[in-house]
Formats: sequence, C-alpha cells, structure tokens
Amino acid sequence: MIAVLKQNVTEAQLEHLKGWLNGLGLGVHISRGSYQTVVGLVGDTSRVDIDLLQGLDMVESVTRISEPFKSANRKFHPDDTVVTVGQASIGGGHFAMIAGPCSVETPEQIVAVAREVKAAGAGILRGGAFKPRTSPYDFQGLGAEGLTLLRQAKQATGLPIITEIMNQDQLPLFEDVDVIQVGARNMQNFDLLNELGHIRKPVLLKRGLASTMKELLMSAEYIMAGGNEQVILCERGIRTFETYTRNTLDLSAVPKLKELSHLPVVVDPSHATGQARLVEPMALAAVAAGADGLMIEVHNDPAHALCDGPQSLRPEQFAALSAKVQRLREVLA
Amino acid sequence: MIAVLKQNVTEAQLEHLKGWLNGLGLGVHISRGSYQTVVGLVGDTSRVDIDLLQGLDMVESVTRISEPFKSANRKFHPDDTVVTVGQASIGGGHFAMIAGPCSVETPEQIVAVAREVKAAGAGILRGGAFKPRTSPYDFQGLGAEGLTLLRQAKQATGLPIITEIMNQDQLPLFEDVDVIQVGARNMQNFDLLNELGHIRKPVLLKRGLASTMKELLMSAEYIMAGGNEQVILCERGIRTFETYTRNTLDLSAVPKLKELSHLPVVVDPSHATGQARLVEPMALAAVAAGADGLMIEVHNDPAHALCDGPQSLRPEQFAALSAKVQRLREVLA
Amino acid sequence: MIAVLKQNVTEAQLEHLKGWLNGLGLGVHISRGSYQTVVGLVGDTSRVDIDLLQGLDMVESVTRISEPFKSANRKFHPDDTVVTVGQASIGGGHFAMIAGPCSVETPEQIVAVAREVKAAGAGILRGGAFKPRTSPYDFQGLGAEGLTLLRQAKQATGLPIITEIMNQDQLPLFEDVDVIQVGARNMQNFDLLNELGHIRKPVLLKRGLASTMKELLMSAEYIMAGGNEQVILCERGIRTFETYTRNTLDLSAVPKLKELSHLPVVVDPSHATGQARLVEPMALAAVAAGADGLMIEVHNDPAHALCDGPQSLRPEQFAALSAKVQRLREVLA
Amino acid sequence: MIAVLKQNVTEAQLEHLKGWLNGLGLGVHISRGSYQTVVGLVGDTSRVDIDLLQGLDMVESVTRISEPFKSANRKFHPDDTVVTVGQASIGGGHFAMIAGPCSVETPEQIVAVAREVKAAGAGILRGGAFKPRTSPYDFQGLGAEGLTLLRQAKQATGLPIITEIMNQDQLPLFEDVDVIQVGARNMQNFDLLNELGHIRKPVLLKRGLASTMKELLMSAEYIMAGGNEQVILCERGIRTFETYTRNTLDLSAVPKLKELSHLPVVVDPSHATGQARLVEPMALAAVAAGADGLMIEVHNDPAHALCDGPQSLRPEQFAALSAKVQRLREVLA
Repeated sequence: MIAVLKQNVTEAQLEHLKGWLNGLGLGVHISRGSYQTVVGLVGDTSRVDIDLLQGLDMVESVTRISEPFKSANRKFHPDDTVVTVGQASIGGGHFAMIAGPCSVETPEQIVAVAREVKAAGAGILRGGAFKPRTSPYDFQGLGAEGLTLLRQAKQATGLPIITEIMNQDQLPLFEDVDVIQVGARNMQNFDLLNELGHIRKPVLLKRGLASTMKELLMSAEYIMAGGNEQVILCERGIRTFETYTRNTLDLSAVPKLKELSHLPVVVDPSHATGQARLVEPMALAAVAAGADGLMIEVHNDPAHALCDGPQSLRPEQFAALSAKVQRLREVLA
Repeated sequence: MIAVLKQNVTEAQLEHLKGWLNGLGLGVHISRGSYQTVVGLVGDTSRVDIDLLQGLDMVESVTRISEPFKSANRKFHPDDTVVTVGQASIGGGHFAMIAGPCSVETPEQIVAVAREVKAAGAGILRGGAFKPRTSPYDFQGLGAEGLTLLRQAKQATGLPIITEIMNQDQLPLFEDVDVIQVGARNMQNFDLLNELGHIRKPVLLKRGLASTMKELLMSAEYIMAGGNEQVILCERGIRTFETYTRNTLDLSAVPKLKELSHLPVVVDPSHATGQARLVEPMALAAVAAGADGLMIEVHNDPAHALCDGPQSLRPEQFAALSAKVQRLREVLA
Repeated sequence: MIAVLKQNVTEAQLEHLKGWLNGLGLGVHISRGSYQTVVGLVGDTSRVDIDLLQGLDMVESVTRISEPFKSANRKFHPDDTVVTVGQASIGGGHFAMIAGPCSVETPEQIVAVAREVKAAGAGILRGGAFKPRTSPYDFQGLGAEGLTLLRQAKQATGLPIITEIMNQDQLPLFEDVDVIQVGARNMQNFDLLNELGHIRKPVLLKRGLASTMKELLMSAEYIMAGGNEQVILCERGIRTFETYTRNTLDLSAVPKLKELSHLPVVVDPSHATGQARLVEPMALAAVAAGADGLMIEVHNDPAHALCDGPQSLRPEQFAALSAKVQRLREVLA
Repeated sequence: MIAVLKQNVTEAQLEHLKGWLNGLGLGVHISRGSYQTVVGLVGDTSRVDIDLLQGLDMVESVTRISEPFKSANRKFHPDDTVVTVGQASIGGGHFAMIAGPCSVETPEQIVAVAREVKAAGAGILRGGAFKPRTSPYDFQGLGAEGLTLLRQAKQATGLPIITEIMNQDQLPLFEDVDVIQVGARNMQNFDLLNELGHIRKPVLLKRGLASTMKELLMSAEYIMAGGNEQVILCERGIRTFETYTRNTLDLSAVPKLKELSHLPVVVDPSHATGQARLVEPMALAAVAAGADGLMIEVHNDPAHALCDGPQSLRPEQFAALSAKVQRLREVLA
C-alpha cells in the first residue's frame, strides 16, 4: 500500500503517522521527493482500512498494490478449490453443467425439465423459487412451494439442486438445497454473506451488475472469513452503455478471476445476453475461456412460461449445446 | 408498449396473441409492414410483464413507451409530495439539510456534532450505526449501540434522526428513528423494500451505483405499493469509467426525477465525490439544479474517525456551506 | 419508427405532422390513447433524421424499431460478405489470423516477425507505423518509414499487410497497404470514413471504446454509402468500470453483429485485455463465439520493444495458440 | 511512479532495470517485501512510457502517483489561465456565455440569433458549419458556406465566433474564426491536436464521451506541447448506462479539473442532456459548481430547424437563463 502525502507535511506529522502504522504491525518506507512524499507500507495490508488512511488531513491519495482479499487469493492458496455436490464437481479441472427453468412452476414442469437436462448431461438442477423482480407488479416466484417442487424433482432424478436465496431469514427453508445461489443484486448484501459464512454448504455467488472483480472477490471473502470455503464465483454480465444485449458478458473475468483466486468460476450466458440465439455461442466461448461450469436456462415450453425471459433454450437445444461443450472440452484438454 | 413481431408470424398466431392481450384488459393496434408487424398495446401496461411478452417465440422486441411506475408517477399525481419530520420538511418548495458523521462513535462525538450542525442550520441528524463495507475486515459500525447514541443526540438537540437499515430483521430497533435510510447497495433488496411498504415512516431511498432512474422509481414503487407514500429519493453518484472521483454525481437526475415523479429528491455530495474539497461546489450545484435537500457528512475530528472517508467536512466548513446554500436558495426563488 | 406525442397535441398539429411525414414517403399510423398519442411510421425510416423529429415541440419521445443502417444490414443482404486479401479470406466460413508487432521498428524485426507468424499460420501481417498515443510524450511510431519497412516484410514473405491510418491525408502513403485499419479513436472520424468509402480496398474498422454496436454499424455504413463494401468489423474491448483488465472484451458482439449484419467480424484480444496471459483464453473464446478472424500482437523480443504493451505474445506462444485455434475450428465446424 | 515486480526477479535483473531508469534521469528506490518487490521512481516521470515499463517481463504492475500532464498541471502553473476573445474573457474569475444555434442555416437565421443572444448577454456566438453525425444519411451542415454566414453574423454584431473543426485540412477556412472547437469525437484525433498546437488561437476542447479527465488533460497537453497555451476545457456529458438523459453531465469534473489544472472549464448542458427542459437547471448547477462559462444552444424557431435536437432554447428562454446566471454569480462571488 502506497500513500502519497501532501506537499506541506511536517517531520512531526510524518513521525506520528509512522508510529501509528508501525503499531498496526506494518513496516514503513518513506521517500521524500521535491513535489511529494511517498510512504510505502510493507506487511499484511489487507486489514488496513483504506478509507481511514485516506481520511487523514496529510494524505493526498492511497493506492493498494496488493490485493485486499486473502482467503480467496491464489497467492496464499495456489491449489484450485474443487466443489463437489452429488456426482458433480466444479473446479480443478472438473466441469459441471447447471440447467433448469428460470422459475419453478408446477411439479410436472420441474420434474420433466429435470429429467431432460439430466439426460443431456446436466449435473445440477437450477430453478427459481424466490424471484427478484425490478417491478412489484411482476411475478415473484412460487416461494416456499417452489422449494418443495424442487425437492420432488431432486427425488425423481437424483440431481442436486441450486436455487436463489433472497435474505438470511429464508435459510431454514434451504435445508435440502445443495448449492445456495446469491443473486447479482445481493452480491453486497453483507448480512446475508455473513450468515452464509457460518453454514457448511456451497454458495454460488453471482457478480453484481456493476461490481468489479475485486468486489466480487471481497464478497467471497465475507463468506470465507466466516469459515465456509466452498464458494463458486459466477460471471453473468455487467452493465455497460450497450443496449443490443441485456448485459455485457465479461468473459475475460474467467481467466482473470482464476489467475487471482483459487475459487471455481462458472458462467451464466442466459441472463447475460437475454437472447436465446446468443446462449450457445457465449456458452462455447465461456468454455474456451476456461470456465469450470455453465448455468443455462432450459424450459420445456418457453411460450407459456409464467416468468421467463426470451433467453431459455428448449431441451433439445440444450442437449445439442451440451454435446458441443463436451467435444470442445476434449479438444482443449 | 410496442411489440415488433418476427417476419414469419401467421394470422392465427396474431389472433392468439391479440386474444391474450385483450384478456389482460389492453387495447391492441396491429400495423403490418413489409419487413415487420408492429403491435401497439393501449391501456394500463404497467402490469404487463415485459419479460413474458419478450419470451414469446413470435416476438422480436418489445419497447415500453409509457413508464412502468404508477404510484411514483407525476402524470397521475401532479402535486409534489412533502415529507415532514420534526421541524424539517422536504419537497414542494421545502428544503432540508441532513448532516452528521459517517459513523456514530461515542456519546460525546454524536451529541457534539448534532449541536454544531443544528446551530448551522441542519434540520435532520444523520449518523451510521450499521455500516455496509466492501471488506469484511473493515469497521462495520457500532450496530444497536449506535442507535442508542443517536437517540441520545436526538434528546439532547431535538433533531430528528436518519440512519441506514441493512435488513428487515433490524426494523424493531428502528422504532425511534425518524427517517429510515436504504443504502445504494440495498436499493434492489426487494424483501426489505416490501417490509418498508408496510410501515408508516419516511424512507430515504438511495440510488444504486449502477441503477437507472427508472429502476430507482421502480424501487420507490415497491415501497409505495405497500401503502407507504413517504419516499425521499436520493442521488449519490453512479459508477462510471472515471477514476478521479469515487463516483460520478448525476445531477441531471434531480430535475429529471422531479419531472417524472412527485417525490422529493435530495443529493448526497459527500459519498458521490469522496473528496472534502468537492463537497461544497457539488452541494451548491445540487441546490441550483433544484434539489429538495442535501445530505452532508460532518465530523468534529476527521483525522481520528473510526470509519470516515476523506469526504467529511469540519463543522465550521459545514456552517459556511449552509450559509451559502441559504443565500443561493433566496436568489433562485 | 414510433413517435409519442405530448398530451395537448391538437388535430391541426397532427394533420401537419402527418402531411410532412407522408411527404418523406412514409406511411403513418396514428393511435390515440387517453394519456398519449402514438404515431407509427412505416417505410424506409433509415433516412429520417431522428433528432429533427425529436426537436418538434409536439413530440415527447421517438423510438426506432428498425435499424438505421441499410447497406450493412443482414435483412437486406442475407449472404455473408467475404473479404479476400492475398491467400487469406475473412467471413462466410473463412477465417484468418492477423499477426505482428504493435510497432514496426527495424527491417530485421519486422521481417523476422513476419516469417515467424507466417510459419505459424498467419495470413496477414499487422504492424503499426502511425501510433495514436494518449500522451504527446510517448513514442508515436516510425510513420512513413514504418510503411516502407512493412512493404519490405511483404516482399520477403508474400504476406498481405494491414496497418492503421490516422487521417485522410495519409491515403497516398497507403497505396501498397492491403487492408487499411481505422483505430478505435477514429471510428467516428466521419471525414476519414467518407474518404475510405471512395477507395476500393478492404477497411478494418475497430469499434470505439465507448461505441455501441449500432454506432459501429453506422460507421461501416459511412464507408459503404461511398461504394466501398469491403468492411471488416473488429471488436477490441469497450470501456467499463472494471480496472483489472484494460478494457472489457465484448464477445457477445461477435454473434450479435453477425446476426445484424453480413459483414465479417474479427476480434483483437491483445489490446482488449492488455495482458499477455489473457490473450490465449480470449482468442479461443472469440473463435468459439464465431469470430471470422483474430488480430494478435506478436513480438520477437517484447522486453526491448520501443512501443509495446505487456500484451504481446512471443512467436512460439503465437504458434501454440494458432495450432489450438485450428483444432477448435475443426471441432466447431 | 511505482512498479511492482514479479516474485522471482533476480538481483541482476533488478540492477539492469535500475541502470535503465537512472539513464532516463530518474531516481530509484527499491523496497523488497516477502511477497513482492516495489520500485519507486522519483523525478519527472511524465516522459516515461508506462506501456513500455509494463511490457517488461519482470514487471507485475505499474501505477502513476503523479499526473502525466505537465503544461496543463496546476502544480507547475498555479495561476489561472485567462482566455480573452473580443470583449469576452474566460477563466481567472471571468465568465462568458457562448450561445447560438446547433447549425448555421441561413443569413437571416444566424444574424437574428446573434443579435438576440448578444442582447441577452452572450459574449461569443456559436454555430455549427461542419456537423459530425452518427448517420451518413443525416444533415451534415452547410460546410464552408456556414463559415461565411458566421462571418456575416460577426460583422453584424461584433460577437466573436466559435465553430467546430473536423480535420486539420479545414484550418485555412478557420482564419476568421475566433475560437476553434474540437468536438467530443475528435478529442483524441491526435494529428488534429498537433496542428492546433502550432496556431495561436484559442481552442475549446470538448471531453470525449468516454474520456476520463486525465485523458482530456492529456489531449490539452498535445495542444500545449506545440506552444498553444490557450486551451478551454469543456464538459459536455459522458456515456453511462442511464437512458433517461442523452449523456450524464459530470459536473464534479468542473471543480476537479480546476483543482488539477489552471485551464478554464466551460460546460455545455444542451448536448449533455438533450432536453430543453433540463438546460436551465443544469446550466445553473454548472455555475454553482464553479464553471468559467456556459455553451448554450439557442434557436429562433426550433420547430423548423434543419439540424436541431430537442435541446435548443428559444431566445426568450435564453435571456431568462442569462439573467438568473448573472444573479447566481453575484451571490456566489
């Protein structure tokens, strides 16, 4: 961490600052130039509150040169984290297809989709029970009943299930859920993240619409700081000025996150693009970029879905995609 | 709402679509061109789920031409909403200064700051008890104890208080809080918004870092749909590519939101810019743009704050700003 | 094109508007609702100046529902455009590797790199002679001398060459250049685009840092409107809030641009990411997303380059990438 | 400038690097930590090519801690630059109103508008002759004839004139133009900037749609490096995800640019917002934020303009705004 001090800093102020930083267990290097004085901090700076330092009158600017995340940092944990649920493993060379409908609607629908995606190679079933919607007038999901239907699909097919949690009070309902999903809008719901740190169940953490990779890793750090190390990162598109796609899928985040962190990274091309025609090319691109898994919306009758964007694939489209992904992974191996 | 259909749509499909839309109580106008067929929907389209319509196989794209928010819409409620707490009123020509420290720290600190900002013209005291922080290792606020200290400051000065809520379980603690603040990261925490719709207390709703004005108004709509009409909108900077300021304060949101909605709009220049030197010019600019209030961070000893960015003003700087705001408002009236 | 009129529009104004639009050869459909009147325009709206329409007092908003680009539009030209230079073809199922150094430096350097990339499968040699640099104090390229060196490399290897033009006055110098590159910062240099419309040589048009796909296609339209139909679109990353990569490579632009337009699309992963380690995964991802070509920076001695970012591959890294791309394309075919 | 080196750097490499940097006239401080080695450069780093340094194999990342602009930097030139044309001065406490139509159309139009804006207090007349348009099918301005009409308006009223240049070949036509405007799309047209550095006439440089303040100052540096120190910076809105306004006017750029640089800063609220109703509030806000001038679109018959967005004020609206600006400046003084 580097602090640039203002021009008029006195020796006494400098000594005071040095003493305070030494007290935090940090080494301090001072370099006085003609226009500015630069203070370099050496040691574990992940616990230095950067806002506190910037708040000091004598400080002009502060720059971190090492990452503020620790548990999620590959530098301190070089080996890939592997998350295993049911027969599926994600990370460390293992790859999983997560598939299912946007919303759980009826027992027939969810069991039918679960059977079809399993046959096509999916290892985990997804389905929304609690749905965050921008408008209070839009369909908000079946809620607890949706979880019951997911459980039935799990019993019918043996597929582990993943579904989204909206707040920590819902945790008791998620007993039988295999992977808990934190949606993009909740990526910085810190109270929820704290609670998820105290359970021992994988969490799939979606990147926020306007969150940097660093913030995503800091949110993973919240969960890991509580002792839960089974975090799966998920890239699902960021908000930009472009309007021809719903969001801009940031696939460079896949290799970059894997360089910075040992956590597995999956990609959701359905929500990112919002267009069924773009799901296959972006899914294949995600695999080529090194993703550890894909999360794909599949619906058995898109035209009559209660809550369903134009981004769902039909089961036969999913099966074709799944076969291509398989071939792609072989050639890349 | 306008739906553009795909080129190969049959008459039968068109009739089916028309019947379904009529069933929702909407008028339907169809215009067939050589390259596309356009369907116009007339009536209350705020309750049409746009994703549902876009999910239909025959639909190429859907565009809203009227706003999806209703309770917050000035078209249906031409008169300004005025929110009154204590002696302070916000909206409809009334203006309020909200001031106080980033974090509540000690009884002495909060009471001292409260006295100083009151003397300088503030009508509402702000202070953080629960602090959302990007890093799990940074100071997270005093929590419930902070609320107790705020209550003491309220008793000592008579100033109503505003502080941030992090989740709906904390509501019982907020009994004596006069205005509940929803932070930028929680702007789309829909469960929280729903709960706040059921209380009868003003809510200050901060715009999310990457939220459009429409989404801000839709989140206000969540609260208002529950029956709580006392919503104050707050512009606090959006995320852009610029790095010389922490966020980009979008002051054009002030007149635009007031054109679209009858709700009052306040501006927080402290968090937006992240730099004390920029607070005064941006506060004055917000007033000139028509803001109904300002929210300013004031600290009596910035250099020793527990949680405090470099954006806090000292009390004497706040007093000077407050006097300028007063003069500005007179000349603009 | 749909225009929403203000509430208080009179019948006389409406008739006036209708007459004007009919005069432009457009059909007009009018639908009067209780809160707004909607005017639909039918016909070739690509030549309607949307700002002109929006400037009318009676108009609240205008929305295009068909694309404003015509020559570049796949709807009117369903077959893929194929651009052929030397032995290389791009588009319509043909794929080309474009490779070479950021800057041309010496005859030895450029000839050596040209030989190495040709051996590894490149079909076109790239190399910068005129370099747009953010700082006036940074190296600006060899200029005309760089073009001479490129010509030598072309003679030595038979590879066609591509290099960037900075303004239309340089055109005479580009006689022997096979493909003229328009850089991201010049994507909306309309005078340059107009001039390039009058030559008969392929133009590679890079997407601007903050340009939408629509604007990219409109800039292609400038060139095509002049009669030059050999335009290659190039995605090279857009500007977002993310700072861990230099730009955000928008790979969803590849399938989306190919859906909207018949023009070939190539991807430049070197400039987008700014990091050599990310070039291979993003190059492979671009191929999986359907790109018609790749543009890769290759340098024979990155540590001593005059102008060279950390994004260059060494020749052996390029050869390995090229072989992987080949295998990937076979499995995707 | 701080360079963080990779973990495995040898002493020999370090010595080699140090020698090279010393050769550039820079002092070098090296600090070896357990996880990384940090190299601090002291001296005039504005001439260090950051890409070159980042391109070295041993370097992990490079951070500038001092600004790369020099001539434009307030640190080295503490006094405000004042630009004077005709009776108008901009900067150093002087304020000017620049007003006129989007496009010059007829002699009657431009002379009439010039008279009206002069009477209302404008000190400089603006009017577009060469118009950069996104679509090749939209009106592109009267060109050279437009410049002739502007000259007539100047003769008729005595107002100095400002108009936009599109490329350096047009310079001979701009002999009688008092201030040359560089549009947002040309902010990084470096060949144009270089040429403008060699003339002795004020240049108004508009910030690019997606340009940072640093890049704006670097483009000013291009002009100043050529010896032309009369540069006026202009904030005119940046591109963000928000769609309710055309661009997001970044008013915090006003005090921030004035802190970083001695150059005057003017604001163009017309293009930024694209909506006449927002021009007045944002113009007043710009003044309150400390702008040295305003650039306002005024048209005598907006409904019949050839090229005119919905952002133009009528002369009487401009006169009312001008009077408010005057009162505002008095109270802020």
